[in-house]
Amino acid sequence: MPTLSVFMDVPLAHKLEGSLLKTYKQDDYPNKIFLAYRVCMTNEGHPWVSLVVQKTRLQISQDPSLNYEYLPTMGLKSFIQASLALLFGKHSQAIVENRVGGVHTVGDSGAFQLGIQFLRAWHKDARIVYIISSQKELHGLIFQDMGFTVYEYSVWDPKKLCMDPDILLNVVESKQIFPFFDIPCQGLYTSDLEEDTRILQYFVSQGFEFFCSQSLSKNFGIYDEGVGILAVVAVNNQQLLCVLSQLEGLAQALWLNPPNTGARIITSILCNPALLGEWKQSLKEVVENIMLTKEKVKEKLRLLGTPGSWGHITEQSGTHGYLGLNSQQVEYLVRKKHIYIPKNGQINFSCINANNINYITESINEAVLLTESSEMCLPKEKKP
Amino acid sequence: MPTLSVFMDVPLAHKLEGSLLKTYKQDDYPNKIFLAYRVCMTNEGHPWVSLVVQKTRLQISQDPSLNYEYLPTMGLKSFIQASLALLFGKHSQAIVENRVGGVHTVGDSGAFQLGIQFLRAWHKDARIVYIISSQKELHGLIFQDMGFTVYEYSVWDPKKLCMDPDILLNVVESKQIFPFFDIPCQGLYTSDLEEDTRILQYFVSQGFEFFCSQSLSKNFGIYDEGVGILAVVAVNNQQLLCVLSQLEGLAQALWLNPPNTGARIITSILCNPALLGEWKQSLKEVVENIMLTKEKVKEKLRLLGTPGSWGHITEQSGTHGYLGLNSQQVEYLVRKKHIYIPKNGQINFSCINANNINYITESINEAVLLTESSEMCLPKEKKP
Repeated sequence: MPTLSVFMDVPLAHKLEGSLLKTYKQDDYPNKIFLAYRVCMTNEGHPWVSLVVQKTRLQISQDPSLNYEYLPTMGLKSFIQASLALLFGKHSQAIVENRVGGVHTVGDSGAFQLGIQFLRAWHKDARIVYIISSQKELHGLIFQDMGFTVYEYSVWDPKKLCMDPDILLNVVESKQIFPFFDIPCQGLYTSDLEEDTRILQYFVSQGFEFFCSQSLSKNFGIYDEGVGILAVVAVNNQQLLCVLSQLEGLAQALWLNPPNTGARIITSILCNPALLGEWKQSLKEVVENIMLTKEKVKEKLRLLGTPGSWGHITEQSGTHGYLGLNSQQVEYLVRKKHIYIPKNGQINFSCINANNINYITESINEAVLLTESSEMCLPKEKKP
Repeated sequence: MPTLSVFMDVPLAHKLEGSLLKTYKQDDYPNKIFLAYRVCMTNEGHPWVSLVVQKTRLQISQDPSLNYEYLPTMGLKSFIQASLALLFGKHSQAIVENRVGGVHTVGDSGAFQLGIQFLRAWHKDARIVYIISSQKELHGLIFQDMGFTVYEYSVWDPKKLCMDPDILLNVVESKQIFPFFDIPCQGLYTSDLEEDTRILQYFVSQGFEFFCSQSLSKNFGIYDEGVGILAVVAVNNQQLLCVLSQLEGLAQALWLNPPNTGARIITSILCNPALLGEWKQSLKEVVENIMLTKEKVKEKLRLLGTPGSWGHITEQSGTHGYLGLNSQQVEYLVRKKHIYIPKNGQINFSCINANNINYITESINEAVLLTESSEMCLPKEKKP
């Protein structure tokens, strides 16, 4: 029996996944709080699931007419069509002109993997990637592993405490960049599905070709199925078909057939007006709830007399938003208060609930007061 | 608006998937028959589903206590444990010694993709792959795409009309090959779960390290979920953990979280003695049914007086088996009789049913008679 391993040169890998989450999990402090979950949380601290999903799942499992055969490599056709209509709008010029298509993927990570493999194979000269900071840990590493050089940029202006989408547009237009969008939770920004993908409509109207990964796991609450598509916009149908055919070959090697359950549930909802209405209503409730949380955070900081303007908290849409803290303040919250926040200060507001809001706002207040008094130069613009 | 496409150099890809299936689909002949489906078919010509799966799926969808959160990148722990116990036997020495582990993957194709990525990254010198012919189209191309040189070999001896597993053992032992097994449908060969993976137990007993992809889609009938694992056997736990940690990093980039539904159904069945019993019974029925079909095929060929010995048909186990026809005979069946058979003559016997068995056996008889009379040199050993 051999005692030497063929794996003897293989070292233990450094865990990529969330060093922040890892630290949080290892923390013994009883009141520790994690504000960086990727998904929308309920007031009870569980990942949110749209009620209409549970109902539809049950209906589907009771339907004897359904088959459970392999999906084609490209995936469930009706799901792709419904997802593209959701992403671009049913009457999108690009859809009418047959120059938008998609591949049903294993979640948005699968969509990224697939899209990046295509770019590596067919755009050999393009080796530089600009990625929004908040996406770097998740998707930037995939680019890096495939030999791309990754530069980070942020659309958050820490001085003006607001988003500046012009940064994105300037980069794309001046540098001849191929855009690769990520729509991880359409409907959970403003609850208006069209409004949430306005940037795609803009790029379509400007005649850009681009990729877009879309996750439908988070806005339906089907996290464990990884439901996604890689959407492709090309200048015409002929080019689109060429790109899709190459993507099919890559998907065949990656997973051969994407998983069906989540896509089937979502398609049933998107194609049934009554269920669609219920889903939209559930999105509205979530978004209203998050806005309410943000209002409360702002109000509590005001009542505590925390220095600074906190209007930016309620000016941002969606589950995730910037607190507008500097790195010293973030570090204080993590180290001293056991409140886990990413370095860029962008948190998931749906992680804040009645049980932890007081501790969080009081801690922010403490962090701001302490760092303000210890710093010579204040990074935040103060209002009187 | 730009009119030049950034995709202008991207051609239409040649379809990899089943050129045979494609030709079959394009054939207008009303009585065409496809005998090369990957999955087990029912007598009615539908993909087989174990009844216990439907029952379990319904139970799961009615359980309000379940959550639908993201699985860890490595997948569902209880599923991996149950799958490994199925593959190696609960009392396998390697499991007891903690040197067997697995990653929950998107089907067996995902397992292959993951395993091959690992080998490319950590065994840079190994660039040659020997693959069983029948697996070449599916998995060989993945190796090729990643820069490996692929050689085919067959364990089917076309002269002796039988399987010769010594070919495999000789290759592995003499060439210092790293074995990568594929167990696509455990239980559908002999209906004896242990018997069907005896080769793995042999390699474990000989102290080999190896990879094994396992699909649980086909032996449960959950085709549309791509339920698989990549199993790793190492010389000790320390090496195993190193390999698994590297695989985790690769899986993170590939799909981040594997799909849960199929794995959850299968785990519920494997961990419940009553459900497990029902599943085993369903496997037994399928295998008995296939054996009956093979007996009928052999008997019909005997009654037709078809030259040659056809005992090898019933001597082979499982859904797929060699008819023992030469390439000229196979070509005759495809071209003249619209019966679609792969070039190597290996068919899926579960595709043969009461509706098509007469046409198939009569056509085989015709093919053998015609080619025997036209050939100078007979490739088959005839018995008097």
